[in-house]
Amino acid sequence: MAAESTVELESSMKEHRDDDEKSNGFSVSAVSMDVEGGDKDPSGNGVSSVIPGWFSEISPMWPGEAHSLKIEKILFQGKSEYQKVMVFQSSTYGKVLVLDGVIQLTERDECAYQEMITHLPLCSIPNPKKVLVIGGGDGGVLREVARHSSIEKIDICEIDNMVVEVSKQFFPEVAVGFNDPRVTLRIGDGVAFLKAAPEGTYDAVIVDSSDPIGPAQELFEKPFFQSVARALRPGGVMCTQAESIWLHMDIIEDIVSNCRHIFKGSVNYAWTTVPTYPSGMIGFMLCSTEGPLVDFKHPVNPIDQKDCQKSVRPLKFYNSEIHTAAFCLPSFAKRKIGSKET
Amino acid sequence: MAAESTVELESSMKEHRDDDEKSNGFSVSAVSMDVEGGDKDPSGNGVSSVIPGWFSEISPMWPGEAHSLKIEKILFQGKSEYQKVMVFQSSTYGKVLVLDGVIQLTERDECAYQEMITHLPLCSIPNPKKVLVIGGGDGGVLREVARHSSIEKIDICEIDNMVVEVSKQFFPEVAVGFNDPRVTLRIGDGVAFLKAAPEGTYDAVIVDSSDPIGPAQELFEKPFFQSVARALRPGGVMCTQAESIWLHMDIIEDIVSNCRHIFKGSVNYAWTTVPTYPSGMIGFMLCSTEGPLVDFKHPVNPIDQKDCQKSVRPLKFYNSEIHTAAFCLPSFAKRKIGSKET
Repeated sequence: MAAESTVELESSMKEHRDDDEKSNGFSVSAVSMDVEGGDKDPSGNGVSSVIPGWFSEISPMWPGEAHSLKIEKILFQGKSEYQKVMVFQSSTYGKVLVLDGVIQLTERDECAYQEMITHLPLCSIPNPKKVLVIGGGDGGVLREVARHSSIEKIDICEIDNMVVEVSKQFFPEVAVGFNDPRVTLRIGDGVAFLKAAPEGTYDAVIVDSSDPIGPAQELFEKPFFQSVARALRPGGVMCTQAESIWLHMDIIEDIVSNCRHIFKGSVNYAWTTVPTYPSGMIGFMLCSTEGPLVDFKHPVNPIDQKDCQKSVRPLKFYNSEIHTAAFCLPSFAKRKIGSKET
Repeated sequence: MAAESTVELESSMKEHRDDDEKSNGFSVSAVSMDVEGGDKDPSGNGVSSVIPGWFSEISPMWPGEAHSLKIEKILFQGKSEYQKVMVFQSSTYGKVLVLDGVIQLTERDECAYQEMITHLPLCSIPNPKKVLVIGGGDGGVLREVARHSSIEKIDICEIDNMVVEVSKQFFPEVAVGFNDPRVTLRIGDGVAFLKAAPEGTYDAVIVDSSDPIGPAQELFEKPFFQSVARALRPGGVMCTQAESIWLHMDIIEDIVSNCRHIFKGSVNYAWTTVPTYPSGMIGFMLCSTEGPLVDFKHPVNPIDQKDCQKSVRPLKFYNSEIHTAAFCLPSFAKRKIGSKET
């Protein structure tokens, strides 16, 4: 089994070297991988050296548990300036994008995250025109923003160009978002980009970040939220990835408290099911700035399938009922978060 | 590591032998376990022989993925007439009950399943008095049923006495349900029990079964649903465990179709988050018999904390908002299930 994996890896590594040569100077520094035993994972990508042929997601963010997916073929392994990047074909979840050993998306369930993080904020305000996406280098949020015909301008600031290039190469149905003519991509630091943005520019800012350990750390801190609030128009909205109520209630309480101080409109927590994220779910922090009231729980701008470009696939996950339901919290979370919401 | 695990196992096996001697003739035939390598899992309990010290849930029911929990100590391993039974102390999810290698409950997240499978049906009808639980040998559903002060009689029919005894020994906060004086426990076949039950006996039947591979198979088939409908009063309700929309839409469609034929009242599908179940969620099939209309989505019998016995812990998960939200389905599931609901 180990020998087979090694052969397979060599073959796939060669494949992506060939691909690199075609891609106009985009190159990767591939890391070595040892699947032949030992307890260590020298790739740092989560490729299990103890379960040959499986990827295991082990992290200090969720100690004592690990979700594993069977690998059919490793399609890409690289190391950017910021993180390790891997793509593999899984046996039952389609292709999988992994950053620093943590699953970012799988083809089978990415619809839940991308549709919810986008339409929860955009369906909560009438007529959104200008949207900023921080992170989201895979392009999935762009694909979802582009469904709204009212949108005129979509800025995206992603720190890691390798994520963009890898997504375009291996996840065309996700990266399709980059093809929309309203999109302007900046490769750079989202924190700096926001600081430089003119005040009151955006109707919505969507923060599609990885976990608060690694390059995304600043995106969970107070100064960043202040920059977001400043860049939004009055009554503008922010939606940010905000961890799981089962695993990180302490982080969530901090995020909610910070947002309560900075956003003078509504502050609400929502969540959705995503099987391949730790604990099988992920939360979102939704906030609005002072100005026209935003009632996140009752979407005023429902998305109509007829409204979508014909080239875009139908919505798989989001609908108005699940929008409202996403704000209903289990009692243990309601007791801790509910009192802090506005 | 392997050597340590072996020592630990021997010590815990001795412990439960001692315990057995105290428990009035309840005995187990402990299975052997080899944690020292090789690809096989001779215990059949999911104790990983490839990640020493971890439990991995691998099943043909969810090919290509596995959730793993770190084992602190194995507390019990036995084999009943029906299945393999294991209890271990995990490092971050408390104690864990495993049947035939599949996680049934963990102390950390059992509240979600037990509270939802019980209060979704019981809060949907006024004044429930007689309840039957099929399966549910851990006692958690009984604990939840007992919160309702209107209840006069709780019958439970569990096929496997080892589950009951193991739960009483290792999960006192779950098995506390057996202490309620309204409870009558039968050890036996739920299918036969229901056939023998007088027609129109129960206000609610709750089917807390394991997956449809193994001893619970019959509980997902049409003749069983017919027996349930017969045993319910007019306008009585059934709630049964009904798999995950992410993994088993085909099974769910069959269950919904079968129920539509048999239950002439309402037929609705709901779901909840449970981190340690495959895909991080589990669904419920809710049906009512012909008679007074049951609107499952709007609970007419909200559970009041003051109504609960003081000895019972407060509700951790269930509330009226999450009751209603549980019936909101993602679009991909709504398209397949929605048209079949009544």
